[in-house]
Amino acid sequence: MSRGYFITFEGGEGTGKSTQCQLLAESLRLKGKEVVVTREPGGTDGAELIRALLVSGDINRWSGVTEALLLNAARVDHWDKVISPALNRGAWVICDRFADSTIAYQGYGRGLNINFLWELHNSVLPGIHPDLTLVFDLDPEIGITRALARRTSEVRFEKMDLDFHRRMRNGYLEIAKNNPQRCRIIDARQGIEEIHSDIKRLLEVTP
Amino acid sequence: MSRGYFITFEGGEGTGKSTQCQLLAESLRLKGKEVVVTREPGGTDGAELIRALLVSGDINRWSGVTEALLLNAARVDHWDKVISPALNRGAWVICDRFADSTIAYQGYGRGLNINFLWELHNSVLPGIHPDLTLVFDLDPEIGITRALARRTSEVRFEKMDLDFHRRMRNGYLEIAKNNPQRCRIIDARQGIEEIHSDIKRLLEVTP
Repeated sequence: MSRGYFITFEGGEGTGKSTQCQLLAESLRLKGKEVVVTREPGGTDGAELIRALLVSGDINRWSGVTEALLLNAARVDHWDKVISPALNRGAWVICDRFADSTIAYQGYGRGLNINFLWELHNSVLPGIHPDLTLVFDLDPEIGITRALARRTSEVRFEKMDLDFHRRMRNGYLEIAKNNPQRCRIIDARQGIEEIHSDIKRLLEVTP
Repeated sequence: MSRGYFITFEGGEGTGKSTQCQLLAESLRLKGKEVVVTREPGGTDGAELIRALLVSGDINRWSGVTEALLLNAARVDHWDKVISPALNRGAWVICDRFADSTIAYQGYGRGLNINFLWELHNSVLPGIHPDLTLVFDLDPEIGITRALARRTSEVRFEKMDLDFHRRMRNGYLEIAKNNPQRCRIIDARQGIEEIHSDIKRLLEVTP
């Protein structure tokens, strides 16, 4: 049994990642693949409890450092219990956000040192990176409007100011530039079907 | 206004730390000092929610690495919002557990690398150590019996096996040996009054 394939979907709020995760999973399942669709922060019972602490409540509830530690705690639990076992049995894992989100949000967005964040990642999940990362790129003014229209209570990050979201978008583009072997940028201004086609085309050439 | 004084109480379960924190606080207040008594994990609204994730539920709920990250997240919040402001206004801070607990429990107890744990501490709370640490030493067979008699639901660590608690006790003695300038060992077999007198005597000579 060969190791599975680990794809992460990254990008700002309201860029359409979650919808595309589901569409890609369906099309892979139609081809007979085992697919695990999961998300961060979350993906396990414990990590979903950590998620609840992070994504709701007051903007100033946690400092960037505390967020980074909570996110890594959730990620280790998720990796150990869901992602790693699935990859080991040969499944495809499609994960809505992973370590790049912490670099983009807490690093570029909140201004934490990027090296500190990568060192933290490498100390708890050494050498663990996705096989492919799709970076959904969209003007945050459009994305935030879409995200807030969802009417969920998970809006702690959505409520952060537009400059935060602009720094984050630039951060994602920087991450993609620095990791060309695993990152592909998706133009998230397109419609749902166009984006899905882009992703399927990428997967025909990438893995 | 001079900086306050930061005392931590450390040791295994059921060693009588919490009682002694209160007694010391009372005797310092009688001398007119401002005293903040607090605890870890916890001490802020956010950190108490993280505590709830850590101290209850199944023994295997979290890995040692996840625990260490959650504990550091709670500690940064606690330091930023409670301990540091109190010390800056000149108060005495008496804290029931701090960073040494993570070294003893997750390092010596659960077997995580001690250097990794200190590096994690130094990356999020650089150079931050108590002025004085009292290490309550007691045979864990006695301590666990006492702790379980409390009938709280916070028994996740108490339920870990005796070998875990023995490694932890030895870990605390090691920490005290390695940090002789700030650590003092308290013989926790003694009665409440004797221990309180020991601590008051230590404070007359230490600060």
